[in-house]
Amino acid sequence: MKTAVFPGSFDPITLGHESIIRRALPLFDKIIIAIGTNIDKTGYFPLERRLDWIRSVFNGVEKIEIANYTGLTVDFCKEKGADFMIRGLRTSADFEFERSVAQVNMRLVQGIETIFFLTQPEHVMITSSIVREVHKCGGDVRQFVPQAMHNSI
Amino acid sequence: MKTAVFPGSFDPITLGHESIIRRALPLFDKIIIAIGTNIDKTGYFPLERRLDWIRSVFNGVEKIEIANYTGLTVDFCKEKGADFMIRGLRTSADFEFERSVAQVNMRLVQGIETIFFLTQPEHVMITSSIVREVHKCGGDVRQFVPQAMHNSI
Amino acid sequence: MKTAVFPGSFDPITLGHESIIRRALPLFDKIIIAIGTNIDKTGYFPLERRLDWIRSVFNGVEKIEIANYTGLTVDFCKEKGADFMIRGLRTSADFEFERSVAQVNMRLVQGIETIFFLTQPEHVMITSSIVREVHKCGGDVRQFVPQAMHNSI
Amino acid sequence: MKTAVFPGSFDPITLGHESIIRRALPLFDKIIIAIGTNIDKTGYFPLERRLDWIRSVFNGVEKIEIANYTGLTVDFCKEKGADFMIRGLRTSADFEFERSVAQVNMRLVQGIETIFFLTQPEHVMITSSIVREVHKCGGDVRQFVPQAMHNSI
Amino acid sequence: MKTAVFPGSFDPITLGHESIIRRALPLFDKIIIAIGTNIDKTGYFPLERRLDWIRSVFNGVEKIEIANYTGLTVDFCKEKGADFMIRGLRTSADFEFERSVAQVNMRLVQGIETIFFLTQPEHVMITSSIVREVHKCGGDVRQFVPQAMHNSI
Amino acid sequence: MKTAVFPGSFDPITLGHESIIRRALPLFDKIIIAIGTNIDKTGYFPLERRLDWIRSVFNGVEKIEIANYTGLTVDFCKEKGADFMIRGLRTSADFEFERSVAQVNMRLVQGIETIFFLTQPEHVMITSSIVREVHKCGGDVRQFVPQAMHNSI
Repeated sequence: MKTAVFPGSFDPITLGHESIIRRALPLFDKIIIAIGTNIDKTGYFPLERRLDWIRSVFNGVEKIEIANYTGLTVDFCKEKGADFMIRGLRTSADFEFERSVAQVNMRLVQGIETIFFLTQPEHVMITSSIVREVHKCGGDVRQFVPQAMHNSI
Repeated sequence: MKTAVFPGSFDPITLGHESIIRRALPLFDKIIIAIGTNIDKTGYFPLERRLDWIRSVFNGVEKIEIANYTGLTVDFCKEKGADFMIRGLRTSADFEFERSVAQVNMRLVQGIETIFFLTQPEHVMITSSIVREVHKCGGDVRQFVPQAMHNSI
Repeated sequence: MKTAVFPGSFDPITLGHESIIRRALPLFDKIIIAIGTNIDKTGYFPLERRLDWIRSVFNGVEKIEIANYTGLTVDFCKEKGADFMIRGLRTSADFEFERSVAQVNMRLVQGIETIFFLTQPEHVMITSSIVREVHKCGGDVRQFVPQAMHNSI
Repeated sequence: MKTAVFPGSFDPITLGHESIIRRALPLFDKIIIAIGTNIDKTGYFPLERRLDWIRSVFNGVEKIEIANYTGLTVDFCKEKGADFMIRGLRTSADFEFERSVAQVNMRLVQGIETIFFLTQPEHVMITSSIVREVHKCGGDVRQFVPQAMHNSI
Repeated sequence: MKTAVFPGSFDPITLGHESIIRRALPLFDKIIIAIGTNIDKTGYFPLERRLDWIRSVFNGVEKIEIANYTGLTVDFCKEKGADFMIRGLRTSADFEFERSVAQVNMRLVQGIETIFFLTQPEHVMITSSIVREVHKCGGDVRQFVPQAMHNSI
Repeated sequence: MKTAVFPGSFDPITLGHESIIRRALPLFDKIIIAIGTNIDKTGYFPLERRLDWIRSVFNGVEKIEIANYTGLTVDFCKEKGADFMIRGLRTSADFEFERSVAQVNMRLVQGIETIFFLTQPEHVMITSSIVREVHKCGGDVRQFVPQAMHNSI
């Protein structure tokens, strides 16, 4: 069974995340979308709300599991029996950061491979951080997030 | 009438900002230098001082207007009837960030175009953040900021 | 009179070029699209065909002039009385190259400013070089070039 | 059946290529290593030799198929029934180029997804082009290429 | 006498730092490893512990001096009679940042040259910040830091 | 004795090269400026002329030696007893390329360290390739090359 973890803070989940997960689905038997949490860092949106949004977006998609975890992402992968991590790449700045994280993970636990998917051109400008910034300024962020969240953000 | 907004935190304005604004002047009928402010984020230098510095730098330049705003930059542009935003580009790291912001702005309000000017080679190393860092350490920052501020920083 | 030169090899002109030129039009009184040619370097498409394509794309647009030149781009600008050059920016790799060229031009002739426009997200992957590559392999390149060229490429 | 094409010129295949293919194997039912050839561009090493080297490296690996093709890579994928392409990412410069190619491919044929794997840290400096350069200067390139080629390069 | 300062927060020192310092030793008569401190910013590990770790790593290496300072790094260099600074380069993102800092330093005090060494391929993913992140999550960071610290981190 | 090789094609030597070599002089006992040549690749300027220009620029500077070589740069270093190579860094694009080359060299011959110096801000836009391009177009390249060459280029 091919299981992948897509870790992130999903604060909030964006159209970019959704597209990558849907395109990754054919390649795996199960994808676990997992929100990593830190005791000393709370998100902009509460954890429960972020999880609810992800649940509503992938409601009824059988291969998808939704979870949250504390501690190292690689430990969570081992616990779940996942041999793969999924990450999206938007820009070359993303790339440098993601490469360091993936290579550290490879060193922490052998045999967990990070697979990268490209963000679609129309989603390249969308980051959770920019969505939060626009939201904080009272702007309408619906065009940047999945349809299923339009009534609750 | 061609109106452009040059948004920023100008904390403080630098020689790099000044040079870009002066080079952009021939292209526009009015340039509004606008400090975006956030309720939850105060600057290193107080807002009023940052505005005063900009006023002293462009004192007597007719096409220049100086303002501050809260909320989305694109909403401020609409309110002011500005169809253009001006931004400077120093490095490729800058570029990745500025591209995302400009593309999100294009999506929030159609018809506002961001125009980019190159930072002059001798100003490429100057950022407001480095100026603050040197200032905090008690260093002399006058060679990085406009002449008009030399007695008050 | 605000005149800008958009220099390039346009081998061939793409949707990306077209979009940048149309978005730059409101800012200038005249835009000269100019193909720089080299004696020792011939293009993939013949010069005359490249010029014809540009003519058909901007047919009837009053502010547009189409030309070709040899020698330095800055000398051509001076000859035409243009104080501005227009360039598009797709990626951070583009940026590094364009910055060097613009800064060298600034040093060769003072007072010629290069203005940068962002490539639209849906055009970021389109370069003349990729279009030529696809064309060479017998692929259909029409979705990457302006409508007016669809019957002749 | 999950089939992926790993396209390239493999002039020559390197340790970096080998590592990526071996790490991609668990994810696919078949991986086709495919040398794209151009009539007007011959490689540094002859095509037949490049193919032989790849054959010797993956000798006995059941899921691997080795091929060469002319024309568009996406057409070759369609012909082979492959829904995925595999590419390695070494550096951020690589990334910018690979992103453009992958996004053009997505536009040429819908439904072909490019999956990216990271080059291992110890292989990041190895490119076919650097291997050729060292080989041309009479240097020993064996530490950069797979074991199976050590006697024939 | 050729004296160099290797400034940083070393929070904590990593294998990457250690390797660069050891490779820089043949070039200088003295290398001062110096932790810059800020009144308003405390580290993740206490200053004294960070200094102790560096002392244990370079215990008995005659050319090495270990110090901490407040204020501008260039002022510390002048005070110590150091004409050189040493910095490591991991990625192109690093490079953009380090270039700005070095060029500002060159402007603050003339005659202090920053010399760059490359991080070894196997250390490229290691940053103090990633080590802290793994440590915070309860992970084992010993493979990322010098041998001499293995019992005390 | 600390000997460094500054390898390149110096086609032609620029102000950027000159500045880096002069700033590197205090660190070494000898710097060998070495033009690497290839049988199948001739330069834009003839080898002898390129060597003459370098000789005229560093005429009378005792620590400087000027040479040309074929084959691997690291073999030339070994032959000359040089433990260091010097390279300049202009941009992050430069960096990615230089890192690969330096890491391959480290693998080819152990114990040869590449030391990097930053290009001065006012020289960042100058590359030999841009100088050749301007020269080919009949432009005046004297502001980009050392004083000593002004009468002969």
